[in-house]
Amino acid sequence: MVIGILGGGQLARMLALAGYPLGLKFIVLEPAADACAADVAEHLQGDYGDDALLAELADKADIVTYEFENVPAAAVAFLAERVAVYPPRQALVSAQDRLDEKALFRRLGIDTPEFVAVNSLDELEQAMEQVGWPAVVKTRTQGYDGNGQAVLKQPGDLAPAWQSLGGVPAIVETFVPFEREVSVIAVRSTSGEMVCYPLTENTHRDGILRLSIARSDDPMQEKAANYAERLLDELDYVGVLALELFQAGDRLLANEFAPRVHNSGHWTQDGAETSQFENHLRAVLGLPLGATDIVGYTAMVNLVGLIPAPEDVLVNTHSHLHLYGKEPRPGRKVGHINLCAQSREELAAELKLILELAGE
Amino acid sequence: MVIGILGGGQLARMLALAGYPLGLKFIVLEPAADACAADVAEHLQGDYGDDALLAELADKADIVTYEFENVPAAAVAFLAERVAVYPPRQALVSAQDRLDEKALFRRLGIDTPEFVAVNSLDELEQAMEQVGWPAVVKTRTQGYDGNGQAVLKQPGDLAPAWQSLGGVPAIVETFVPFEREVSVIAVRSTSGEMVCYPLTENTHRDGILRLSIARSDDPMQEKAANYAERLLDELDYVGVLALELFQAGDRLLANEFAPRVHNSGHWTQDGAETSQFENHLRAVLGLPLGATDIVGYTAMVNLVGLIPAPEDVLVNTHSHLHLYGKEPRPGRKVGHINLCAQSREELAAELKLILELAGE
Repeated sequence: MVIGILGGGQLARMLALAGYPLGLKFIVLEPAADACAADVAEHLQGDYGDDALLAELADKADIVTYEFENVPAAAVAFLAERVAVYPPRQALVSAQDRLDEKALFRRLGIDTPEFVAVNSLDELEQAMEQVGWPAVVKTRTQGYDGNGQAVLKQPGDLAPAWQSLGGVPAIVETFVPFEREVSVIAVRSTSGEMVCYPLTENTHRDGILRLSIARSDDPMQEKAANYAERLLDELDYVGVLALELFQAGDRLLANEFAPRVHNSGHWTQDGAETSQFENHLRAVLGLPLGATDIVGYTAMVNLVGLIPAPEDVLVNTHSHLHLYGKEPRPGRKVGHINLCAQSREELAAELKLILELAGE
Repeated sequence: MVIGILGGGQLARMLALAGYPLGLKFIVLEPAADACAADVAEHLQGDYGDDALLAELADKADIVTYEFENVPAAAVAFLAERVAVYPPRQALVSAQDRLDEKALFRRLGIDTPEFVAVNSLDELEQAMEQVGWPAVVKTRTQGYDGNGQAVLKQPGDLAPAWQSLGGVPAIVETFVPFEREVSVIAVRSTSGEMVCYPLTENTHRDGILRLSIARSDDPMQEKAANYAERLLDELDYVGVLALELFQAGDRLLANEFAPRVHNSGHWTQDGAETSQFENHLRAVLGLPLGATDIVGYTAMVNLVGLIPAPEDVLVNTHSHLHLYGKEPRPGRKVGHINLCAQSREELAAELKLILELAGE
């Protein structure tokens, strides 16, 4: 069985590493010559719009999946005529448009910040009466890692913000003062079976995830899992989905979802019985899903722009290093460290050292 | 950093899968065209005696290791002049000769069955006075998985046994009635750091390992670990070593050791915090060794000659499948299943189902 993947970065690489023990082989389509997934998969080098390459991928793969949500819709449509593609196209379409995404949340009874679609500076000015100050305006499409958005604190911010986004269709949302950012990694198989991992608390800096901490007894687990399951059912979803939420008091407000394995689920490689990567593959293959139980106390620290000396990381016998085979550059995710501990106190002590090594 | 491996079977494959997260790359030298490690490593196809290929391996790899103990001594000598080779040659030499191996155990105060070297039928007849009946006669070299040995129950067995082994130098040992077979997986780094995994209880059939069960509270743990550490120290060992022992009453009798990652350590992939494969790599790289703590209750079942339907295996959410990418043939190891459980009773129930699927 051959799994094709659109994208050949670290997520594809970790999918492949998780899939060989299941007897799978892998082929990735990725424009970059130095794709880090190419160490462990066949590499079709070229553009996502190249029909000949897409046809080759469809021909060689039994199932195709993807590692990023900005996959061109045309590429997925082309592939879907020739081979099974998961997660389903509808999930990709919703995730690519912030307005559709938020409207979907609202339709499913998933709490969100107040939001309004805006297509002009006039509409933005009007919308502010409904969403209130402060607010965030975001382009409907093509945003990632904090790009394509601007904060609105006062009327004077409106015009510059609108201009900075390029005047494209946008969505403006109430800025809700939240206590923490959490995400839930959920999985649904072609058979309809669903499982959910323990809730993860995430810390971002400069729009990039730096730290995730998962715990088995999070008080918001049930609500988050319920929201994720509504999404999975509605989308007739197959694979791993990550739902990012803000917690404000007792409310969980949906921010966005990613129709793929997700950075905030990397801790599952060492901290859960079955990793998100293996469960994504089991889901698309229609295999029973693996146990998602947390093992002890666990956290993940991203390595952004630097790789500390492995001996300094591993001197803590409970650190687990995951390098992506990528050259460090500022702002580039080049690896992560998973921590396992027997108690919350032990985890806190380990985290302190590892965060220093990671330059956090 | 590139790791070269002599042999391209499942052990090399699992070493590579464990090594990519450490940022390593892999190259294997293996005669078979369909080497299953070639899915995840560069493959130099050819004979272990081919100096040009060995030179290429030494040139491309920063460190060389091996996945089987019958590596030709000349190949290791050739490589060792050009590149670091671990585990050290002395360990390989001792492990390749059953007499040297047993003599080493004896010298280190590691208990063994009574044994005598025999080079002729006359010597064998004489030796029986010392070792007593029943006994086992084994060729000194080239034995594996039950080959190259014969059981001696009565004087009439001596001549046929001697003939069946081909009249080559041999060793005859007392057959000790033992209650169980156990093994201990120990690791020593270039820095001298040592760690030991929890003792594993093993069940063989037709000379092939079928089942391993590890527990964190085995009463013989301390004695087994002490024996393993004596070996590691004496050999100035680097890497993973597996010491196989028989338990008879309070005695642990050393049977043999393997200077490599070992089938009885496969449970560590899902049942221990750090796998034997990762710790072997950490050891040869001089990195700190990872925690060897057992996680819950765990067991491993080998898949010999058949691959059950993955959905039947994985329907137990605590089973973890490890296929080697090999075609099933009678007597061929083609994969294994690791089980994780929260209690001894749960493990026993899971095992029953999995053993049936594995045809045991």
